[in-house]
Amino acid sequence: MSGHMTPDEFRRYGRQVVDWIADYQERIESYPVLSRARPGEVLEALPEHPPERGEGFEAVLADLDRVIMPGITHWQHPGFYAYFPANASGPAILGDLLSAGLGVQGMLWATSPACTELETRVTDWLAELLGLPAAFRAAGAGGGVIQDSASSAALVAILAALHRADGGAAGRDGIARRHTLYVSSQTHSSLEKAARIAGIGAANVRIVDVDPATLAMDPARLDAMIAEDAAAGALPVLVCATVGTTSTTAVDPVAAIGEVCGRHGVWLHVDAAYAGVAAVCPELRWINDGLDGHADSYATNPHKWLLTNFDCNVLWVADRAPLVGALSILPEYLRNRASESGEVVDYRDWQISLGRRFRALKLWSVIRWYGAEGLREHVRTGVRLADELASWVRGDEAFELLEHHPFGLVCFRPRWDGLPDGEADAATLRLMDRLNASGDLYLSHTKVNGRVLLRVAIGAPATTAEHVRKTWQRIREEAAALA
Amino acid sequence: MSGHMTPDEFRRYGRQVVDWIADYQERIESYPVLSRARPGEVLEALPEHPPERGEGFEAVLADLDRVIMPGITHWQHPGFYAYFPANASGPAILGDLLSAGLGVQGMLWATSPACTELETRVTDWLAELLGLPAAFRAAGAGGGVIQDSASSAALVAILAALHRADGGAAGRDGIARRHTLYVSSQTHSSLEKAARIAGIGAANVRIVDVDPATLAMDPARLDAMIAEDAAAGALPVLVCATVGTTSTTAVDPVAAIGEVCGRHGVWLHVDAAYAGVAAVCPELRWINDGLDGHADSYATNPHKWLLTNFDCNVLWVADRAPLVGALSILPEYLRNRASESGEVVDYRDWQISLGRRFRALKLWSVIRWYGAEGLREHVRTGVRLADELASWVRGDEAFELLEHHPFGLVCFRPRWDGLPDGEADAATLRLMDRLNASGDLYLSHTKVNGRVLLRVAIGAPATTAEHVRKTWQRIREEAAALA
Ligand SMILES: Cc1ncc(COP(=O)(O)O)c(C=O)c1O
Ligand SMILES: Cc1ncc(COP(=O)(O)O)c(C=O)c1O
Repeated sequence: MSGHMTPDEFRRYGRQVVDWIADYQERIESYPVLSRARPGEVLEALPEHPPERGEGFEAVLADLDRVIMPGITHWQHPGFYAYFPANASGPAILGDLLSAGLGVQGMLWATSPACTELETRVTDWLAELLGLPAAFRAAGAGGGVIQDSASSAALVAILAALHRADGGAAGRDGIARRHTLYVSSQTHSSLEKAARIAGIGAANVRIVDVDPATLAMDPARLDAMIAEDAAAGALPVLVCATVGTTSTTAVDPVAAIGEVCGRHGVWLHVDAAYAGVAAVCPELRWINDGLDGHADSYATNPHKWLLTNFDCNVLWVADRAPLVGALSILPEYLRNRASESGEVVDYRDWQISLGRRFRALKLWSVIRWYGAEGLREHVRTGVRLADELASWVRGDEAFELLEHHPFGLVCFRPRWDGLPDGEADAATLRLMDRLNASGDLYLSHTKVNGRVLLRVAIGAPATTAEHVRKTWQRIREEAAALA
Repeated sequence: MSGHMTPDEFRRYGRQVVDWIADYQERIESYPVLSRARPGEVLEALPEHPPERGEGFEAVLADLDRVIMPGITHWQHPGFYAYFPANASGPAILGDLLSAGLGVQGMLWATSPACTELETRVTDWLAELLGLPAAFRAAGAGGGVIQDSASSAALVAILAALHRADGGAAGRDGIARRHTLYVSSQTHSSLEKAARIAGIGAANVRIVDVDPATLAMDPARLDAMIAEDAAAGALPVLVCATVGTTSTTAVDPVAAIGEVCGRHGVWLHVDAAYAGVAAVCPELRWINDGLDGHADSYATNPHKWLLTNFDCNVLWVADRAPLVGALSILPEYLRNRASESGEVVDYRDWQISLGRRFRALKLWSVIRWYGAEGLREHVRTGVRLADELASWVRGDEAFELLEHHPFGLVCFRPRWDGLPDGEADAATLRLMDRLNASGDLYLSHTKVNGRVLLRVAIGAPATTAEHVRKTWQRIREEAAALA
């Protein structure tokens, strides 16, 4: 067993693993959604020392059931409503398996031309499916690239923006003056993290006010802040507008923000990590309003709501030159004819890392298996179930609904009549903990205008109307019991 | 076909994919190692528009053979000697498949405790297998974490070092003074890239001289440079020592460098991306000399030579506090009891991105399948084959060997007797291109002291003594034909 696994052994164990996954899919509802493991429980159940001699793969599968599964929080469970979904799907899993089986590393075009060119094609396909501006297609000055995450996409966008703003000075000599980024209070924390990583500093992430009703960024305030900062000697680098914020799926006014950016020559990055894929449906395509002619970069995560298992973010830029300018470096050992010809793309120059997996395969599998039709159907199901849930919440006097819910997320809270705000918030969190401890569902929470709300993010492929109905019933019952 | 793939469909197509991969493993030698696709060829063969209606998975498999395979450069081919190997293996592929099938996202301990705790366990296991210092184990102040790549590991190490050096000032307010990093001319380009990303600037990456014979960093020169820079008002942040450089697998004197770092209070990061895993063999454990008490962080890539398909880098730190200090951020929606208890690790605070895959599963599968014994055998095979090749090169008067080859890499060149240096280099590159065009093997090159050398990196699991013998014969024949 200490030798290499032969192709025949791979066939045998491969079938076992495929069956294990299919069985898992079939029995997923028998698991509590949120793992009940206590801290250290899985660690202690694993041997302290690695084996001296190899073991059969059966041993791994047995321990998977015995040790690992009790420590799993089931993201594919129909009762998983926390955060945002991280959809897996059969075609994605198999596309990923093909990628692992091929075992190619696509840092350069030359190290596997198909790894690069399929990525170019599928990011173009996705741009078309979502109706994104033509500038983001590879045929022009821009193009798409797969990143591991929206966090990395934002970091990479900042680096490109910085490169455009200072002609590469910071990359060459280091950050030497105050650079500023613009977000709202609703922007994902990855922007602040990226500012820290990029040496811009968290304190230079300027937080633009939002409209308290829509939670959308105020473009007039943005305009004023950029002007003030520039007048004070800072270099405004990038504005991040969000389409579908993490907290409540609020949508920033991209067109108005884009006009401000255009006026000040500041890079506009649009983070549509969760909601961007919804544009596959014509009735939701309004979320792209304002991108055309304004957005310098745009990112969405097929690994959230588009059936492509983590990790798979797609970042598009309208102009690839500043991106490549910021991230390209050419040591001798990577020199090759194809790169020097200028006829090919080397995606290592579009990302933080050098090496890269063949992630385009899983996105290709997903788009081909579902077709535009199937993808639309999936998004629509989530939106419809969320609408249904929202209508029940709206109709129940014991609850207060956050009315904005264009996608799969519904935010609400029990009114806890009579309780002061602080106690009501504590009660809402207690309710959440009780529901999550039940094993039937898993919710997360947020704070909006200082009040704690429950977040129910619908979108796991396994979630049906019946699941959502039961979920609502559970929430009402538990809330009533706690009241 | 536009609906979700059912578990039964998944069983059926899953078997097809498993068989496809096993067939691929069996017939891999029938492909030319280096793809012969011309730029744009794969792209043009792919439909310009995505399908409106879903297709069967058979269509994907058919196009994989027809369109994708001609564009693949086969990293698992026994004749793949370029760069460094990126080993895949049966157990790794199946571990990765399990991860895709579970579809969990381990950003927080709570979002799948087993995803975190298995990672803690296997990084401890690997530290033990490699004989790394106790400080790198999770039981103390340090610990290991899986990153996507050595590039990210270096970036993350720089951010931790910066945090330790300035108490978090740069993260808060941005980089405001000159910060310096120290590398040698042989250090991987990812360090320069990380310096650009982190806002330190490429010009502040100080290049320390190497000994022209060993290509190892000169600690005395390093000492002097740090002292000069500090005296001139810069903040020296990090030194990167390399164990197994990309160009020739040179080994920097870690202990002597570590003493310099200790004296100046500068963070020592050791990049052992390729060679680090060789320490699984007692006879190669000397590569760890000097780590204990000196190295603040250490990174190696199981995705290179340790049979774990890309991506899988392991980064260890002796003290996790500055790492978490540099990268932690806690928005409301991620608050949870387990994190607040302080009893758990949230690996999102150890990396650039928020979301994370369950990569520990594949490393666990690999270690269990092979056992320490099997891993040693794999590394020893590579070293033995490289030794054999080196002995043939040494024994051939028409060739000049670079004598340092402790691992799987052999560097050499034909002497091209009589040719001036420039022409000789051009001839060496021409030889490489001819060999690579043959389809039987794929080499890369480097420059050492101004001269072009061929790099033959042995380590694909499929490569046997017979393959290496034939490779050497081919190289001699082609060189003779060109001479
Ligand atoms: C709007 C938004 N941006 C960014 C992210 C971060 O995503 P990732 O894990 O891909 O970095 C999220 C995650 O929920 C998000 O909702
Ligand atoms: C010494 C060294 N460091 C870093 C790297 C970069 O590796 P990765 O692709 O994991 O970032 C390499 C790649 O060959 C390397 O040899």
